[in-house]
Amino acid sequence: MKAVLFKNGLRLVDDYPKPSLKQGEALVRVSMAGICGTDLEIIKGYRSFEGVIGHELCGVVEAVQAKTPAGNRPEGSPVPVGTRVVAEINCGCGWCEYCRHGIKNHCSQRTVIGIADREGCMGEYVAVPLENLHPVPDEVTDEEAVFAELLAAAFEITEQVCLKPSDRVAVLGDGRLGILSALVLNLTCADVKLLGKHSQKLAVASDQKVKTILLENLFGQKEAYEKKYDLVVEATGSLDGFELACTLVRPRGKIVLKSTTAGKAELSLTPLVVDEITVVGSRCGPFAPALRALEEKAIDVRPLISGSYKFEQALKAFELCKSGDHLKVLIDFRQYCPGNSPA
Amino acid sequence: MKAVLFKNGLRLVDDYPKPSLKQGEALVRVSMAGICGTDLEIIKGYRSFEGVIGHELCGVVEAVQAKTPAGNRPEGSPVPVGTRVVAEINCGCGWCEYCRHGIKNHCSQRTVIGIADREGCMGEYVAVPLENLHPVPDEVTDEEAVFAELLAAAFEITEQVCLKPSDRVAVLGDGRLGILSALVLNLTCADVKLLGKHSQKLAVASDQKVKTILLENLFGQKEAYEKKYDLVVEATGSLDGFELACTLVRPRGKIVLKSTTAGKAELSLTPLVVDEITVVGSRCGPFAPALRALEEKAIDVRPLISGSYKFEQALKAFELCKSGDHLKVLIDFRQYCPGNSPA
Repeated sequence: MKAVLFKNGLRLVDDYPKPSLKQGEALVRVSMAGICGTDLEIIKGYRSFEGVIGHELCGVVEAVQAKTPAGNRPEGSPVPVGTRVVAEINCGCGWCEYCRHGIKNHCSQRTVIGIADREGCMGEYVAVPLENLHPVPDEVTDEEAVFAELLAAAFEITEQVCLKPSDRVAVLGDGRLGILSALVLNLTCADVKLLGKHSQKLAVASDQKVKTILLENLFGQKEAYEKKYDLVVEATGSLDGFELACTLVRPRGKIVLKSTTAGKAELSLTPLVVDEITVVGSRCGPFAPALRALEEKAIDVRPLISGSYKFEQALKAFELCKSGDHLKVLIDFRQYCPGNSPA
Repeated sequence: MKAVLFKNGLRLVDDYPKPSLKQGEALVRVSMAGICGTDLEIIKGYRSFEGVIGHELCGVVEAVQAKTPAGNRPEGSPVPVGTRVVAEINCGCGWCEYCRHGIKNHCSQRTVIGIADREGCMGEYVAVPLENLHPVPDEVTDEEAVFAELLAAAFEITEQVCLKPSDRVAVLGDGRLGILSALVLNLTCADVKLLGKHSQKLAVASDQKVKTILLENLFGQKEAYEKKYDLVVEATGSLDGFELACTLVRPRGKIVLKSTTAGKAELSLTPLVVDEITVVGSRCGPFAPALRALEEKAIDVRPLISGSYKFEQALKAFELCKSGDHLKVLIDFRQYCPGNSPA
């Protein structure tokens, strides 16, 4: 099959072996994949991953290897062959304390699609555990559905922090996750501000009624913002975001950490103690509210799409992503899907 | 009055002016004061404090300046003249958002007894806002009552974190606050371990049924402890305690930060994100459960007393504290109290 392979560099291959299914897995024919910040880290060497890259996808179930040796998955399966699906990326062992409590995202033996010990989705096919699949509502396009994983990560904040409509919220960082976090929080809280360095990216959020502040304007009037926020979401992706978060959060307030950055920063945690701040690390999230928000058009992800490229242009798409001016870049595999192309 | 003064160095004075009361304050005749780690930081220059040092006290109300200009505090006051009391140390403005919500510990205009903009308790008298005073039960000695402030800080953990009896808990640091935190958590949780460097200090906790681990024994078998604890309390007072806490806490677990350390450490917060750890800064706490624990002998603080010194020996007591082998050192003012001495 055709695939974007990361092994001795990033390259396109035409003859990669189609995934063979294990029990309890589905073979998903990929329609669309997204390039994520983690992919860019991987091609710099993050987690020493090798294989088909990619973990944001929308596709169609083409085959299923049922869990029981008896044969086909029973009728009425939530993901029968032909279902259009998106996929959670963490695949648990199924047996440990975490898996048994429904927290496979934290299984210590987990594999992660396109990130850790499991082939990714930037190919014609990907194998995914059945329990990781979510049917995509008809009202959601392939392009929108690819955002489910990232939007779920934004909704994770609302799983972890008890939000009040009166909470004053600041989201730091106008990248994809910062914008989506602000849009998600804006559904519940009346006073959400997105802080970032790029007026064009901030505009994507302000077009959907989120208040925005250009960071350079903040520094002139920092006192107006210091210790004013009940909740600060740190999604800058940079090492100095945490210090700004500490400046903005009120005593007894909360900071949600979204940035995973390589390297260390010189930090003092004493302000957390003095002001009794709570810091909550936050990673992958629930797909159900993300898909519902897409279905009900509560959040419009389309303005975040900076470009959609065919498989043949995938390397060019990755180059574009490195520039930093983009938001979400998609790789379109639909020309290879049945009914869509002569392939 | 006699007092331990910090101004151009630490010294004893005999003629310091007796505090004059503001409206809503009580004049407390000090019986006993404790030396705290913060006092040692102050004499190194922390917060540029100058004045009578000390914030851990037990004393007797000798006079009251009622809140209303009309005169005496109404009958039935919780702290009439003659009441033996301990005192919360944070004195709020009474008007701000925090004070109005009963969180004077976080009032941005607060003064702090013996720490910030308010005279401390290592003198014959100290002025304290009436609302900061708590009557001491008869069953609690002066020596024990001095621990109320520190024990309240340990109980603050139980105000912030929802504890389950089945929680696996590790407390890092065998200083006063580490030991008291372990004793407090041991009241609720079946599996509490105190980790420290000093077998003699650990013994104070193990004598009260807390399991203890000498840190040097941990490093040989770190894997047995890695990511095993639901709750880790960091009370080492050192910069490297946080990293050990991150090693011990399980995914989705909690770290409570108690250490306030000057200086910064090279830290990565990415593990907090990947494992979705919650970090809770924790400072001063509720006096009521602390006094109840002392009254009911649920926690015995007496083994933490390394020595009790008369006022004249206070400088020697401070020297002893600097050595690091001590736990709690007390300064006894009772020879100057009515009925106890010819003074």
